[in-house]
Amino acid sequence: REYRGAPTGTDIECEGWRQEAALRMLNNNLDPEVAEDPENLVVYGGTGRAARSWDAYDSILSELRALEGNETLLVQSGKPVGRFTTHERAPRVLIANSNLVGKWDNWDHFHELEAEGKIMYGQMTAGSWAYIGTQGIIQGTFETLAELARQHFDGDLSGKVVVTAGLGGMGGAQPLAVTMNEGVCIAAEVAEARIDRRIETGYCMEKTDDTDDAIERATEAAQAREPYSVGVHMNAADLLEALLDHGFVPDIITDQTSAHDALEGYYPSGYSVAEADELRTEDPEQYWMQSLDTMERHIDAILELQDRGAIAFEYGNNIRGQVKEHRGRSDAFEFQGFVPAYIRPQFCRGKGPFRWVALSGDPDDIHRTDEAVLELFPEKDHLRRWIDLAQEQIQFQGLPSRVCWFGCNAEGEGDDKLTERARFALRINELVALGEIAAPIVVTRDHLDAGSVASPNRETEAMRDGTDAVADWPILNALLNCAAGADIVSVHDGGGVGIGNALHANNHVVLDGSELAAEKATRVFTTDPGMGVIRHADAGYEDALDEADQSDVPVPMRDQQ
Amino acid sequence: REYRGAPTGTDIECEGWRQEAALRMLNNNLDPEVAEDPENLVVYGGTGRAARSWDAYDSILSELRALEGNETLLVQSGKPVGRFTTHERAPRVLIANSNLVGKWDNWDHFHELEAEGKIMYGQMTAGSWAYIGTQGIIQGTFETLAELARQHFDGDLSGKVVVTAGLGGMGGAQPLAVTMNEGVCIAAEVAEARIDRRIETGYCMEKTDDTDDAIERATEAAQAREPYSVGVHMNAADLLEALLDHGFVPDIITDQTSAHDALEGYYPSGYSVAEADELRTEDPEQYWMQSLDTMERHIDAILELQDRGAIAFEYGNNIRGQVKEHRGRSDAFEFQGFVPAYIRPQFCRGKGPFRWVALSGDPDDIHRTDEAVLELFPEKDHLRRWIDLAQEQIQFQGLPSRVCWFGCNAEGEGDDKLTERARFALRINELVALGEIAAPIVVTRDHLDAGSVASPNRETEAMRDGTDAVADWPILNALLNCAAGADIVSVHDGGGVGIGNALHANNHVVLDGSELAAEKATRVFTTDPGMGVIRHADAGYEDALDEADQSDVPVPMRDQQ
Ligand SMILES: NC(=O)c1ccc[n+]([C@@H]2O[C@H](COP(=O)([O-])OP(=O)(O)OC[C@H]3O[C@@H](n4cnc5c(N)ncnc54)[C@H](O)[C@@H]3O)[C@@H](O)[C@H]2O)c1
Ligand SMILES: NC(=O)c1ccc[n+]([C@@H]2O[C@H](COP(=O)([O-])OP(=O)(O)OC[C@H]3O[C@@H](n4cnc5c(N)ncnc54)[C@H](O)[C@@H]3O)[C@@H](O)[C@H]2O)c1
Repeated sequence: REYRGAPTGTDIECEGWRQEAALRMLNNNLDPEVAEDPENLVVYGGTGRAARSWDAYDSILSELRALEGNETLLVQSGKPVGRFTTHERAPRVLIANSNLVGKWDNWDHFHELEAEGKIMYGQMTAGSWAYIGTQGIIQGTFETLAELARQHFDGDLSGKVVVTAGLGGMGGAQPLAVTMNEGVCIAAEVAEARIDRRIETGYCMEKTDDTDDAIERATEAAQAREPYSVGVHMNAADLLEALLDHGFVPDIITDQTSAHDALEGYYPSGYSVAEADELRTEDPEQYWMQSLDTMERHIDAILELQDRGAIAFEYGNNIRGQVKEHRGRSDAFEFQGFVPAYIRPQFCRGKGPFRWVALSGDPDDIHRTDEAVLELFPEKDHLRRWIDLAQEQIQFQGLPSRVCWFGCNAEGEGDDKLTERARFALRINELVALGEIAAPIVVTRDHLDAGSVASPNRETEAMRDGTDAVADWPILNALLNCAAGADIVSVHDGGGVGIGNALHANNHVVLDGSELAAEKATRVFTTDPGMGVIRHADAGYEDALDEADQSDVPVPMRDQQ
Repeated sequence: REYRGAPTGTDIECEGWRQEAALRMLNNNLDPEVAEDPENLVVYGGTGRAARSWDAYDSILSELRALEGNETLLVQSGKPVGRFTTHERAPRVLIANSNLVGKWDNWDHFHELEAEGKIMYGQMTAGSWAYIGTQGIIQGTFETLAELARQHFDGDLSGKVVVTAGLGGMGGAQPLAVTMNEGVCIAAEVAEARIDRRIETGYCMEKTDDTDDAIERATEAAQAREPYSVGVHMNAADLLEALLDHGFVPDIITDQTSAHDALEGYYPSGYSVAEADELRTEDPEQYWMQSLDTMERHIDAILELQDRGAIAFEYGNNIRGQVKEHRGRSDAFEFQGFVPAYIRPQFCRGKGPFRWVALSGDPDDIHRTDEAVLELFPEKDHLRRWIDLAQEQIQFQGLPSRVCWFGCNAEGEGDDKLTERARFALRINELVALGEIAAPIVVTRDHLDAGSVASPNRETEAMRDGTDAVADWPILNALLNCAAGADIVSVHDGGGVGIGNALHANNHVVLDGSELAAEKATRVFTTDPGMGVIRHADAGYEDALDEADQSDVPVPMRDQQ
């Protein structure tokens, strides 16, 4: 199937921009520049798909083209299943992907249903049509490492070596995020084509398949305090063991292979990619066993490097959970997750990976939004640094887009008191109305956001009050965003940590310059970061209670917090 | 705590009837006439609660009193956690109860969190404030038995004996539903007070604690083809074994003890209620083990009675699932569930237990709605029969209310083509506007409805395409009802089959005689039964595809069904 990505420009195929935005975002997810394997509808993160089949994809497109401004399309695990009359303040598209009743909420049952074409893995932004390629994750990775640098070093990573693995759709952001923080990165990746892709797009500098060589180059760069990155073409477990053999201890050790899916996301040691792919088809159980064997070695090496002084953290791929569950190794959790360590303080303030996309396809539209960020928030130095670095170093993939971590941080008086997310969205909506931006901007975010996810091995790991697994929150988040009038609302099971390990929600709001868009943006960008604040306030975090005060977020029983 | 139930009359405490309706429904759930154990906030079905604690209850009430007509209150497992500005077409209250991330979605983890006051069991209508006492389930039980009588006998149960157990909040409807179908009912119940309560309220005729006596009276009544019911004060397993010893085989065998919760819903044999309650407090593990021992005997006796010729079905309490899971007895599933046998054909047409409540507290308001049913649907004989029986035999509990199974069955032309649920609701809204009904009517339903539930051991048992456990549907149902403007929307895990076994949603629409109410009712009562049609159409049921044709429900990929 020949495939070209999202339509661009100011002419539309649908009855309105809200429907058109859904159509373009879906197609953007599948843009060969954006998706990892568009022929198979795979967007990123193992088998995260945008639609269940090409037939389902075609049907979604024709449904979107016919959809009226007061109708709502229902998508169930990547397949369109219904269309109902609602009203213009309601969402145009509602999506539920990969959700299973608790007792059946596991990979075995999921794979059975998937084989019969009855369900689809939505990952996070794949099935909700909000993926924007590696550029989407880069700021999150950059911010995480910056926070780590603030906590452990002098605010940057110069002279420090980060060892990691996995240069896929999201993991591929790691080398660039390290060099943007002035550090040195060594990243293992079994698929050479992935390394090449990161080099072509400027995310990684060089490659090698020799450990000695990698250590040597990295050490040199670190001593010179120069940013440097190298992709090492080998299995992660093998690389880490080789480092141990060499007595080389990096400053930081982490990993972004798709370990959450032992069968389709992680490669066992001892095989090339082609050999492993063959084994997977011929003997999936063998594959799965060997994949877990390698993961256990991988964990052992991480723990040993930690013992020898490296700062170790899991980067949300559930490799600890896999080794604990399938190898009975609870000590896998003896190194920390990245959320409690580096992200939660931001979540308490409703801050998370807010992103926007120019539906025109015109990079100038994003440059105008970059200016708007700097005009609106002149006092925020780190934003200026981020925008400068992003403009300089990040190539657009598919529709031009930008990520900035915004939160509540409400300012103004009375009814004009607005969150920073709302202030930004209203300003962009104005610029669209004024014609300074050529076509509507769609604003969305990662499912990994302040108030939108329950994921005990990642976003809600080690919550203060022990409510890691309580999934009422993402459901309330989706319902509330629907009530507030987001244009697309979605709820997924799984994502980065795999089936049965997380529940999370997303939303899109289309800024088409209209009054209606302003109304929706004001509401959604109050409710959505607001949920982050109340969720963390309920768990007893002081920062969240403080943010609730500052941003006027009601917390009904707060005296009992 | 002294407790009186819902406020009545036409004066309101809140800023509008939508908020007032939520307040009255919550209080009605806890009316001592309605709830099984209001002091402990337990409404029905084991520990199904309406609020997490009395503090949470107080806070919900004061939030509702202050809530504006464009605000939305968030309730998380029975506790108010947030309040946001939305708009008047959005819901006033959003509720999520008992939801856990898949891998943690089990009783053990739930009980841990519950003990710390971090979560609440919402059951189905308890936590969504839609329970109306035994009168709520009576029509469902009546319709199930009527369908059974149509399939196996001559359309009624005269001369037939039904043996069952459990005379709790829902199970208590069984004796009356049997006698309304002209049959004879023997029901085991360990708690004598429960039997007394059913006798006082006219649901059951007599009681005994002697098996011989029960068999004798039942046989006499059956021979005379007279309706008759008797509560037998003993453990269900003991009663069934005694029947086997006597060589007595009933025509029908079922059960409605709260077997879904082995610790708090089911009584082990060999103990009085008081003794068992003591054991539960002192040694919960012992209790649980013995409870499962009794359940296994209970299942053995049901299977043996089935072998000897009785029609056996599980009545949605997951007793089969419990004995399979905890005793390794897959043969527990050798008798059928009630849904595939008797309910699914109705779900295919969007039909389910629709119910409405008179907020005035005035029985005349319900009598006027009864008339409206007969005026609107003069051709439906079974509805007339039901309304006549209900008026004659069903006492109101708490706020007067009525249940009728309505579905899609759309009639009319073009934009005036409306489902039977919508036609009914619009007519009632008109009667409220005209003052023929004193105060608004709130329309809601059971979570067990056509398109609102995923529950592999009950509502979605043995789906034609194997999608029993796919939970995208209830989530889409909740989102869509939220988009359509229902006034309360809720999503629960658990319910009648226990934590991890089901996900389901509910909605309320307040008919206050306004244009807004008419608009909401038209939309919600199209989307809600419509979801039942598309869910079953997607699974390949012919009846659903036929209903979609007749009622103009779009099914996007139907040529591939
Ligand atoms: N913020 C977060 O929480 C966050 C962010 C990014 C990624 N993640 C998680 O990280 C993982 C990676 O995401 P992705 O989108 O990049 O996935 P992906 O499937 O696109 O890429 C995974 C990459 O890992 C490589 N790989 C697999 N096993 C390997 C091994 N043993 N040794 C070396 N290389 C190996 C694969 O070849 C592939 O290139 C996922 O589990 C994702 O959920 C989490
Ligand atoms: N439509 C449906 O699917 C449907 C309808 C009604 C009830 N149910 C299920 O049926 C069960 C009962 O619901 P409820 O609201 O009546 O619950 P409840 O907890 O109010 O009542 C259960 C009753 O069973 C009695 N009991 C428990 N163990 C017993 C034993 N071994 N022998 C005799 N009596 C025993 C208890 O004393 C209690 O009165 C629940 O599991 C519920 O989910 C399902």
